[in-house]
Amino acid sequence: MPGNPSLVLRKVDDIVFEDLAPPKITSPNDVIVEVKKTGICGSDIHYYAHGKIGPFQLKKPMVLGHESSGVISEIGDGVKNLKVGDRVAIEPGVPSRYSNAYKSGKYEIDPDMSFAATPPADPNVPNPPGTLCKYFKSPQDFVYKLPDCVSLELGAMVEPLSVGVHGIRLANLSFGENVVVFGAGPVGLLTASAAKIFGALNVMVVDIFDSKLDLAKEIGAANYTFNSKSGGGNASALIKAFDGIRPDIVLECTGAAPCIKLAVEVVRDGGKVVQIGNASGDVPFPIAEFSTRQLTLFGSFRYGYGDYATSIKILEQNYGQGKDKIQIDFEKLITNVYSWEEAIKAYDTVRAGKGTVKCIINGPE
Amino acid sequence: MPGNPSLVLRKVDDIVFEDLAPPKITSPNDVIVEVKKTGICGSDIHYYAHGKIGPFQLKKPMVLGHESSGVISEIGDGVKNLKVGDRVAIEPGVPSRYSNAYKSGKYEIDPDMSFAATPPADPNVPNPPGTLCKYFKSPQDFVYKLPDCVSLELGAMVEPLSVGVHGIRLANLSFGENVVVFGAGPVGLLTASAAKIFGALNVMVVDIFDSKLDLAKEIGAANYTFNSKSGGGNASALIKAFDGIRPDIVLECTGAAPCIKLAVEVVRDGGKVVQIGNASGDVPFPIAEFSTRQLTLFGSFRYGYGDYATSIKILEQNYGQGKDKIQIDFEKLITNVYSWEEAIKAYDTVRAGKGTVKCIINGPE
Amino acid sequence: MPGNPSLVLRKVDDIVFEDLAPPKITSPNDVIVEVKKTGICGSDIHYYAHGKIGPFQLKKPMVLGHESSGVISEIGDGVKNLKVGDRVAIEPGVPSRYSNAYKSGKYEIDPDMSFAATPPADPNVPNPPGTLCKYFKSPQDFVYKLPDCVSLELGAMVEPLSVGVHGIRLANLSFGENVVVFGAGPVGLLTASAAKIFGALNVMVVDIFDSKLDLAKEIGAANYTFNSKSGGGNASALIKAFDGIRPDIVLECTGAAPCIKLAVEVVRDGGKVVQIGNASGDVPFPIAEFSTRQLTLFGSFRYGYGDYATSIKILEQNYGQGKDKIQIDFEKLITNVYSWEEAIKAYDTVRAGKGTVKCIINGPE
Amino acid sequence: MPGNPSLVLRKVDDIVFEDLAPPKITSPNDVIVEVKKTGICGSDIHYYAHGKIGPFQLKKPMVLGHESSGVISEIGDGVKNLKVGDRVAIEPGVPSRYSNAYKSGKYEIDPDMSFAATPPADPNVPNPPGTLCKYFKSPQDFVYKLPDCVSLELGAMVEPLSVGVHGIRLANLSFGENVVVFGAGPVGLLTASAAKIFGALNVMVVDIFDSKLDLAKEIGAANYTFNSKSGGGNASALIKAFDGIRPDIVLECTGAAPCIKLAVEVVRDGGKVVQIGNASGDVPFPIAEFSTRQLTLFGSFRYGYGDYATSIKILEQNYGQGKDKIQIDFEKLITNVYSWEEAIKAYDTVRAGKGTVKCIINGPE
Repeated sequence: MPGNPSLVLRKVDDIVFEDLAPPKITSPNDVIVEVKKTGICGSDIHYYAHGKIGPFQLKKPMVLGHESSGVISEIGDGVKNLKVGDRVAIEPGVPSRYSNAYKSGKYEIDPDMSFAATPPADPNVPNPPGTLCKYFKSPQDFVYKLPDCVSLELGAMVEPLSVGVHGIRLANLSFGENVVVFGAGPVGLLTASAAKIFGALNVMVVDIFDSKLDLAKEIGAANYTFNSKSGGGNASALIKAFDGIRPDIVLECTGAAPCIKLAVEVVRDGGKVVQIGNASGDVPFPIAEFSTRQLTLFGSFRYGYGDYATSIKILEQNYGQGKDKIQIDFEKLITNVYSWEEAIKAYDTVRAGKGTVKCIINGPE
Repeated sequence: MPGNPSLVLRKVDDIVFEDLAPPKITSPNDVIVEVKKTGICGSDIHYYAHGKIGPFQLKKPMVLGHESSGVISEIGDGVKNLKVGDRVAIEPGVPSRYSNAYKSGKYEIDPDMSFAATPPADPNVPNPPGTLCKYFKSPQDFVYKLPDCVSLELGAMVEPLSVGVHGIRLANLSFGENVVVFGAGPVGLLTASAAKIFGALNVMVVDIFDSKLDLAKEIGAANYTFNSKSGGGNASALIKAFDGIRPDIVLECTGAAPCIKLAVEVVRDGGKVVQIGNASGDVPFPIAEFSTRQLTLFGSFRYGYGDYATSIKILEQNYGQGKDKIQIDFEKLITNVYSWEEAIKAYDTVRAGKGTVKCIINGPE
Repeated sequence: MPGNPSLVLRKVDDIVFEDLAPPKITSPNDVIVEVKKTGICGSDIHYYAHGKIGPFQLKKPMVLGHESSGVISEIGDGVKNLKVGDRVAIEPGVPSRYSNAYKSGKYEIDPDMSFAATPPADPNVPNPPGTLCKYFKSPQDFVYKLPDCVSLELGAMVEPLSVGVHGIRLANLSFGENVVVFGAGPVGLLTASAAKIFGALNVMVVDIFDSKLDLAKEIGAANYTFNSKSGGGNASALIKAFDGIRPDIVLECTGAAPCIKLAVEVVRDGGKVVQIGNASGDVPFPIAEFSTRQLTLFGSFRYGYGDYATSIKILEQNYGQGKDKIQIDFEKLITNVYSWEEAIKAYDTVRAGKGTVKCIINGPE
Repeated sequence: MPGNPSLVLRKVDDIVFEDLAPPKITSPNDVIVEVKKTGICGSDIHYYAHGKIGPFQLKKPMVLGHESSGVISEIGDGVKNLKVGDRVAIEPGVPSRYSNAYKSGKYEIDPDMSFAATPPADPNVPNPPGTLCKYFKSPQDFVYKLPDCVSLELGAMVEPLSVGVHGIRLANLSFGENVVVFGAGPVGLLTASAAKIFGALNVMVVDIFDSKLDLAKEIGAANYTFNSKSGGGNASALIKAFDGIRPDIVLECTGAAPCIKLAVEVVRDGGKVVQIGNASGDVPFPIAEFSTRQLTLFGSFRYGYGDYATSIKILEQNYGQGKDKIQIDFEKLITNVYSWEEAIKAYDTVRAGKGTVKCIINGPE
């Protein structure tokens, strides 16, 4: 009987390999994906190091991983648009089909969402399995076929890319707008890339590390950058560095209090700020300026209907016309690839913060 | 030669009557309004007591008043839809016709707005005249004819009512939604009233004075109230008092830091908060909750295209079917009416905070 | 063993009573409703007289009825918000939970919708059962609890009311707008009523029968009416009768070619027309005028997310404050109530077109 | 004294050169543009051949031309953002600053618009001057500075490009959508080009001439084409040629009745059709299908706020990164350039329909 090799976070500081029972198809809509590539996310590291993120608290062992791609290995009787062998990206959060959130087209706010590798609010509910395993079960409509031009490595980046796409679509970014993105970590860089492909005329990326800002330009995500530490972290310095442009939209991907304030200060009158980065606690917010200049702030949570499909279209548009016509060099963001056996080492490397951008762990052979 | 009796704020604590030169029609689009009723606004009191509001600083004498109604006494050659004798409400802020803000349908964010009784940002620009005078000049499209069923007193309330209407329209409030309004001062009460007439199913008004909350119910603006001081100023107590309803929309009319935070905490997942009340400085803002529950915050500034017209429709709908079919008793909000000669006394009464809701000053005879 | 008395349309002109097997709960989300009141819809009559509506063709016997209310008689294990004895309105169309239409919040356009008493497109799929029976099974989230102030008769009107609400919400009708409704049949009258409660300032109903127009005024749905036959069926006559108002929104509930053309001609520049009425074939459409005056036309199909809930709020708002404060007299639209035994007679009466507005058939004892 | 050489349409079939009085600055907001390049539009030809377009009727001599670029030769005292020598595109229609249309951000529907080379509705109002002259006067905010990378020839194409941009923005086209454009004349090709730059994933252009369809591919505006004559002008053939894709948005740029019907038939359920092409009279419209599949039809008229600016951003994005990175070859659309002296010949060539795409007439020396 084949098992299901899995990477399990037992508690803080304690990751082990385990061989668990493989999932079985129980609904005609199920598919089984043989996981091939999984990215490491900051939230994984947070559980590893702290055992919780906000209200989500690790209380029992949990299979890690939620940024994955793979190959379909089995399908239920009701599956029509996918077949065994299809290369897919996995959307890791599955909402209740009966929730008002789902029914209204906003499933990302379903409080009963089952999200891979995220402890549920209700401690009596088992931990939803993560994707760092050999076989992962999903409903057919939460896996997305990858075009031929999109590799499995890029398929594993659909998840963090969708986080940016979600914020961009909330703000209804369209061609010609000027955009500032705070943060040049993986989500910030992917968000800036998506903004560019959505037609932003000028994209400025802001961070405190020049090396990250250089990368934003190198991959084609930004045509302006601003170091908010060395550049003087104030609005007028930023706007000056942006050739006098006040952005129409600011995509805040850091969650850091000074960035949130600066986001409000730099955006144009009547403009939009999208809070994508995870923040914690209260931040000082310039509410008077916010009202007087009639701004709008969108809270953006994960991703929802259409975001995965749009992210895959971004990759298709970028890679579909041949390598020489690439607009954004997404592959440059994959700085480390580890074998399955090195998975724990991969976690420790990311946790140590050693200059990685995106680490990928290969699936078990 | 007829003069133009005016109420002038010379500097902090110094209001006097002056007889100024009456305005003259200089454009074919001008009208002259003989001002009949003017409400006192909190901002007037602020200039009287402190000489400034945020960036707007009193540097030279200024005619007070911006909440006015009156009767047309003269019209320019190009005026077609108004005639001498028409009863009108005056919109006190006139934007530049060449600004992008105006051209895009968002004139409230025109930085070159000339707003009655508000010192301009540029100290070299003269103070725009206030409406507390006998004759006030306006472009024809910034005065609005009142229906027969709407009195001049009510006409003077179109201005603060429009502040609420603007926020309501930003949030796209429509029939059936549940709404919480923070603040039971004039703007809060008018905003709650407008929400009700826009079709809010349930309206809760929140304040720290029971007498104000009682008034909210008496005039028909609220079917729920909550005293955030005696009731325990937390989200769960408020929601319990609202029969378990989390509002779809919160209209924040206080600008007080604890209210802004509470607004975010009580609104439903995916809901909207509108910041209408004037705030100052930074407030602690629960950004993590804001993002995770995917909320939207709208900054609302004054009023813009369509708001005055909508406010007048509110009054028309309310009073047009006869006194016995009134839904909201707006007239109960007018607690004091002063003659022109008592105008300074009126200001001192409001400044002293002696239980008034809305004070009206009659125009000079 | 209890049976399930049902009213079956066997083929054109052939309705019979049959005792069928009662439905059984097969999913934890199911509920069984004992049907108490069912309205007769024009589409029922169409199948009775012609055997088809557009692509939907009757090929085998079908239980009739889709406008029903009733009382919950049994619930599945997963049902939390409903209990046996609850009075409910039934939404008769259940989409696929896995369709993109459903997932995107637009389930009304799901091509795999299973709709009561409507032959499916695929002739191999069995006819979805109608509601004219004793026991009807539904997923829990497609029945809606009625407030105490809403009778079961009114509950049976939630279905046609939702048709109007859907069109109104597509057009984003909000307070203060002027509205023209074409058609004073049940859907037209309910649509006009809903427009009024959504805050339309003036509502004109247009029809060719004065008696129907009188009813529109009597129930409070319209403050203007226009007989497009005797009044001269042209735009200028209509606008004159509307005191010179060009409507912001036209809700077209007839499907008649001359009305659709007139709808485009009367709406204001930049205005909206919603096609709610069922039409057939091609109609002559004034496309040049449509473009030059920059109009928008919305096709409106049945109802979708939030419409049933909104319709019930309309009834709650209307009846919740006591009989003397009713804004719209919806009950006056119920012109005939038949016992279960008289059901076939009821169908024949409506088919004969004898001046009924809405006929209700009581459920079997 | 310098005159103002102008091309005047005296009546049908009668174009002459005249030397008129040059315009003078009369408002501080005026600028004078020395016109350098003017495109010939189908509407010009229509007045030349027929003397009218719909309600707009030529009753007295009129200077032709409304698609122009040039160089600023004089500015009024209030002009701050432009200077003598600036290269600009001219927006030819100037609305009333006091109209509700303008104030609401929708100036394209101002009935009092003064539009170059278009006879006004009121025959007592003089014809607004066209741009086919040496000196043309405009308010400062209706001329737009061209970036260095955009030539004056391209500047003359900003007008027809804005027609497409307007329709695209009405439909809120954003990244990833599939689009069909009917018509491969200048407006159709520019609209398809704009759709591509707005991020359409796939663009199909439909026409009845293969040579025009080839051009659509050659310039990069389309990745699919369909000949609706040879290809069988029906929906299923079109969808098959589009690899089974039903478009999200159809941009109808022909005004031809069969195309309008086909547009409705091919768009996806819940999709959008934008009527951009000028049509005349009534067309047969499949209203039943339109409603049942819940489509939306937008009438699009000329262009409005933000469209000229967006069109210039399109050209800037396309040409700003160097000739080798051009996405759309707009210059290929300019098939003929005539000297000022050849202007009448240019009109006759276009009128004869001899395979031109866009003809440009140089300004007088």
